[in-house]
Amino acid sequence: MIGRLNHVAIAVPDLASATDTYRTMLGAEVSESQALPEHGVTVVFITLPNTKIELLEPLGEGSPIAAFLERNGAGGMHHICYEVDDILAARDHLASSGARVLGDGEPKIGAHGKPVLFLHPKDFNGTLVELEQV
Amino acid sequence: MIGRLNHVAIAVPDLASATDTYRTMLGAEVSESQALPEHGVTVVFITLPNTKIELLEPLGEGSPIAAFLERNGAGGMHHICYEVDDILAARDHLASSGARVLGDGEPKIGAHGKPVLFLHPKDFNGTLVELEQV
Repeated sequence: MIGRLNHVAIAVPDLASATDTYRTMLGAEVSESQALPEHGVTVVFITLPNTKIELLEPLGEGSPIAAFLERNGAGGMHHICYEVDDILAARDHLASSGARVLGDGEPKIGAHGKPVLFLHPKDFNGTLVELEQV
Repeated sequence: MIGRLNHVAIAVPDLASATDTYRTMLGAEVSESQALPEHGVTVVFITLPNTKIELLEPLGEGSPIAAFLERNGAGGMHHICYEVDDILAARDHLASSGARVLGDGEPKIGAHGKPVLFLHPKDFNGTLVELEQV
């Protein structure tokens, strides 16, 4: 069912500093930052040859990564995103397997403009899993 | 400097259960488990089209993931591994940039039989970073 690893998201308290770390210390290709107010984050994409890293900084009130950064002040790996061909079929398979889909179970349009779902970390080894239909 | 994302490592308290989750719930291609006593872990590889996930369970005394699992009982993302062409050049660049290399600074032979180094999470947004020379 799952296909490519689309991205690993790292929540950071200071996006400019984190971007500089990836650019200068790790010598990676970094994007300009993009504010995504409807998703409550500002994002920088780290382009690797086979996938990407997303550095996320909270934006505005009620950011979905605010609580994570309260618990992990220095930042950390927040979620991992796998691609699927058919997100509704994936959701139905997961639900029938006993996995919990977060929210109301309906795919939302994610930060890349594509349908996404998030799966409960308690069902996936303490890891928040995002599925994105590509 | 950094190249491909080689793998994301997820520490798990119960490897058989975690493997079953990836096989049956997520429909992924999973390997047989491999005990790596010299690295203190038993590992299962999840093969994705563009990279891999490594599920790690502690093996023996003094496993390098034991403390992580004490803090994160359900498991969680433990480290991320980027490939480099020249690990000594990478180390020297990082040291000159002020990043802390863990251990004595000398590359060790990692679980894939290749030279690796680990970088201090405090210098990388709370994320433990492994570099592997490929």
